[in-house]
Amino acid sequence: MVTDRQNSDRFTIAIMAPARALEPAFVEQVRTYAARHAPELELRFHPQCLLRHGHFAGEDAARATAFLDLANDPGVNAIWFARGGYGSGRLLDLVLPGLGAPARDKIYLGYSDTGCLLSALYKAGIGEVWHGPMPADILRTGGEAAIARALDTLAGTSAPVWTGDAAPAAAFNLTVLASLCGSPYLPDLSGHVLHLEDVGEYAYRIDRAFFTLASTDWFPHLAGLRLGLFSDIPENDVDFAMSAREIAAHWAARHDIPVLGDSPIGHHVDNQIVRFGRTQGENT
Amino acid sequence: MVTDRQNSDRFTIAIMAPARALEPAFVEQVRTYAARHAPELELRFHPQCLLRHGHFAGEDAARATAFLDLANDPGVNAIWFARGGYGSGRLLDLVLPGLGAPARDKIYLGYSDTGCLLSALYKAGIGEVWHGPMPADILRTGGEAAIARALDTLAGTSAPVWTGDAAPAAAFNLTVLASLCGSPYLPDLSGHVLHLEDVGEYAYRIDRAFFTLASTDWFPHLAGLRLGLFSDIPENDVDFAMSAREIAAHWAARHDIPVLGDSPIGHHVDNQIVRFGRTQGENT
Repeated sequence: MVTDRQNSDRFTIAIMAPARALEPAFVEQVRTYAARHAPELELRFHPQCLLRHGHFAGEDAARATAFLDLANDPGVNAIWFARGGYGSGRLLDLVLPGLGAPARDKIYLGYSDTGCLLSALYKAGIGEVWHGPMPADILRTGGEAAIARALDTLAGTSAPVWTGDAAPAAAFNLTVLASLCGSPYLPDLSGHVLHLEDVGEYAYRIDRAFFTLASTDWFPHLAGLRLGLFSDIPENDVDFAMSAREIAAHWAARHDIPVLGDSPIGHHVDNQIVRFGRTQGENT
Repeated sequence: MVTDRQNSDRFTIAIMAPARALEPAFVEQVRTYAARHAPELELRFHPQCLLRHGHFAGEDAARATAFLDLANDPGVNAIWFARGGYGSGRLLDLVLPGLGAPARDKIYLGYSDTGCLLSALYKAGIGEVWHGPMPADILRTGGEAAIARALDTLAGTSAPVWTGDAAPAAAFNLTVLASLCGSPYLPDLSGHVLHLEDVGEYAYRIDRAFFTLASTDWFPHLAGLRLGLFSDIPENDVDFAMSAREIAAHWAARHDIPVLGDSPIGHHVDNQIVRFGRTQGENT
């Protein structure tokens, strides 16, 4: 663990929205639930979570400033990304040069679009990068289970994370990962077990994203693939005739990497926490 | 021109389908129209155009073989890609090692998904790469105008191509270009005027594709952007509040490259032919 919880004040989780905004009602719901479920934790919702600028939770500069405020605050133990949607990638070149020493002593937790930030932080070796539930999961049926899992793991009161493989892990939304290929924000994933999930993408787009991944230097050097939930795949006007798992198997076979089985990630309440880079032996 | 038309047999245009298949009725429509409009041209539809394998016009191996058969045939002057959809990228590693000397003495014409092949050929310096109408454009209302433009340009009987800029040009479907970032199939586009178009993509996806482009080494070194048609942008559940042109202007401004104006490309019958790499002065 980054932070020694025995000797610190209350473990402080700060929440900001790098992509879409939260509704005030959902902020209250999460706050109320957390106060009941894990009163030992302090939750701080940055006011930026409620900003609106077109599609985004405030302009790029406002979102970047909120992130830097929290990342550089030594009193914050974890940054919990509020919600995905789209927009985290727009912050990367704005925030990376501004991260100071306190940013390294933190956990960063999110998934989906916020994988852009997870990727850039992992590449830069800043903090502990966790792929897992976000406050907006309160919107899902049974979403409190996802919130509880995040809180318990941050509080250190539950089994922390996925521990299924000896190789280091990375976890991404497939489409978000494809959008990072060719950028300086994506680490070399050679030797990693790559967990993938996606939602709402046509099968041909899933295939195309795998084409992009498979065209990188690192793809053939993965330790393996694990497949989470691929949900809400729309019907196409020409049936693609392959499921997401068949598509993944195709590209894995083509580049001679193993599909190790399922991953417990996805856009659902059972989304488990996968810690980037840690090996099984290193888990506490 | 690659081929001296005065001293050759009939200019031969060979058609294969690297992605989706053609319907037999459309093959006949194009064949009939071409025989009337440009009887001096020979059109050869490869039987592979009609194959079906799930989403694709035959398995990857069948599409790759058809392409190599035609590309390595010294009697073929131009390869005209039949149709986009999705699937050209799957052929790249299969066909590139197999291209011989006759492949260099050819024109390659297509757009949309077939931009994967155009990109890889241009990067490899093989043949003349043209972005423009395809046989499947016969399906559009008024589509014969697009077919006529392609035939006339290939026949050398009309003004050949876009000649608007002194800098070399490249033309792509935005989403297809984004899918090539990070791959070995995309040339360094520094110094190029980049023409972009897209169809059927949400505004946030257009923005994300620009994020991917803008994260490459070459994007800030473009000579400029030209914007073709961005058609059929679906409504999103959160209005993105920026048009495709506003999104492009945002990313161009952020990386200090000029938007030079409109481009005559797009998923429409007015899709003009843009030749990769040629400068205005070099056009005949």
